[in-house]
Amino acid sequence: MILLLGANGYIGEAFARELKRRKKDFLPLSRRQADYSRFDVLLEFLRAKKPAFVVNAAGYTGKPNVDACELDQAGTLAGNVMLPQTIAHACAAAGVPWGHVSSGCIFSGAKISENGRVRVEKDMTQPELHALAEQKSAAILGFTETDAPNFTFRDPPCSFYSGTKALGEEAIAGIGQSYVWRLRIPFDEFDSNRNYLSKIQRYAKVYENVNSISHRADFVKACLDTWELRAPFGAYNVTNPGFVTTRHVVDLIEKHLKRARKFEFWKNDEEFYRLAAKTPRSNCVMDVSKLLSVGVKIRGVEEALEDSLKNWKPE
Amino acid sequence: MILLLGANGYIGEAFARELKRRKKDFLPLSRRQADYSRFDVLLEFLRAKKPAFVVNAAGYTGKPNVDACELDQAGTLAGNVMLPQTIAHACAAAGVPWGHVSSGCIFSGAKISENGRVRVEKDMTQPELHALAEQKSAAILGFTETDAPNFTFRDPPCSFYSGTKALGEEAIAGIGQSYVWRLRIPFDEFDSNRNYLSKIQRYAKVYENVNSISHRADFVKACLDTWELRAPFGAYNVTNPGFVTTRHVVDLIEKHLKRARKFEFWKNDEEFYRLAAKTPRSNCVMDVSKLLSVGVKIRGVEEALEDSLKNWKPE
Repeated sequence: MILLLGANGYIGEAFARELKRRKKDFLPLSRRQADYSRFDVLLEFLRAKKPAFVVNAAGYTGKPNVDACELDQAGTLAGNVMLPQTIAHACAAAGVPWGHVSSGCIFSGAKISENGRVRVEKDMTQPELHALAEQKSAAILGFTETDAPNFTFRDPPCSFYSGTKALGEEAIAGIGQSYVWRLRIPFDEFDSNRNYLSKIQRYAKVYENVNSISHRADFVKACLDTWELRAPFGAYNVTNPGFVTTRHVVDLIEKHLKRARKFEFWKNDEEFYRLAAKTPRSNCVMDVSKLLSVGVKIRGVEEALEDSLKNWKPE
Repeated sequence: MILLLGANGYIGEAFARELKRRKKDFLPLSRRQADYSRFDVLLEFLRAKKPAFVVNAAGYTGKPNVDACELDQAGTLAGNVMLPQTIAHACAAAGVPWGHVSSGCIFSGAKISENGRVRVEKDMTQPELHALAEQKSAAILGFTETDAPNFTFRDPPCSFYSGTKALGEEAIAGIGQSYVWRLRIPFDEFDSNRNYLSKIQRYAKVYENVNSISHRADFVKACLDTWELRAPFGAYNVTNPGFVTTRHVVDLIEKHLKRARKFEFWKNDEEFYRLAAKTPRSNCVMDVSKLLSVGVKIRGVEEALEDSLKNWKPE
């Protein structure tokens, strides 16, 4: 049996859907049924039910966006640091392997290959990176699992959300047997406040940037595949291979969906942070070679985006 | 055997001294010998050595003061939230009772009994509270263990340090068998950067306020007594009964120690925070009735202060 924590969340419900599709025996556990944020409760539950694997899709993301995490630091820490640490300890004590939904938001920027050298580029403004990406004057490479997160409390500035997600990874690293699955900006064909494609359409103005992103169903399939394939435990970047500029996503939305109004963009980072955002945003490119190397299949970002927009289901 | 974590710290060394004085079999463990911040390492250690009790005197306080915690949020969280949670889990899994050095800094202000009513006074400026304390126009009461901490991430503003200490208490509450010992502003006769009486003498100007404070040796004795007396597990305020105004402490220093210069005070809170401090400070009065009710003996604050200054040992 697979135990699913956080089954009612945006990512958790996708895990539930995929586990059902795969006809897996799974148990979605809510904190009302058993408060799995308590070590003793969770450990007793694991010892009694003996799941073969645990998926933790619970976490604190902030509503409507990460700015909300700045105002609820206790909740953010409880959800993103204390909870995964508790699960890691209980799973280690019970000898149960598990997987944790983490976030690529612990990185900022990209790696740039230019004139035969590769450098980490954290401070390039997004329009600059965007220009580089569109002109292809240099190759943009993603962060790998061996790169140290660079948008964290240890490497500020960062958002409070990103700081806690990075600490959550630290809290579970090397304890027992666990996967850390790094999601980035989920999207799919289902219109929703959490869907990147919906968010872009609802923003007053769009923020120009460069990102790797994760199709929600592709993400949960890839996560479950790491376990089914018995890939080595550890961290995996789980995005659709490649990256996109916001401008390109906007072009695709305009191509596939009929919209009354034209998109407007923030002039630059300065205007965006002055008027629209309170805390720094992570925008980054991820490398998924490790995921692919263990045999997980996942569509390229272009195909996943086109497919989502072709099958768009308005709310 | 008693396992002592954080034996090299300011409070830890006092625990070691007192355990030696009591001729107790104890083992001071450093993170170099065994990284007890890791759940698996600590659990294995507990199972192998089977201590009767564990004392956690490790934590992150910030040097030279709590402002430093604002700049090292990862270290502060690791030391004050993730570490106590790890110890709580490992002790619960191994069935070992333990005690944790927490802090009264999760409270701000005092409770005021005036005209037959008791109210929590959090926002009174320190000079106002000071005046109230000196004029005795109202009775100043301390916070008890049933009062909710009011200087935390859940009840802002607070310092990052205080926020993490409060979350540390939440992380261990109700997990296994543990004491939470709340220390407040340690002092004693040994001149030191961590000693309140030394700090006051080294400040350019003194900040006027009202506080309950803890004589370091009295504190560790009282903590160990809760365990020796088999007091019920849970939180205990461990300060010398009573409270002091900074002005009174300054008077005592001037009376007992010969000093070349006169003390100067910050004009008010506004000046103090503008010029001397980055993050809000906790100043508060604690009630130690619960500690006394379980049979622990501890000197009044006046006696402890006079004794420290009479036996003053310059560095």
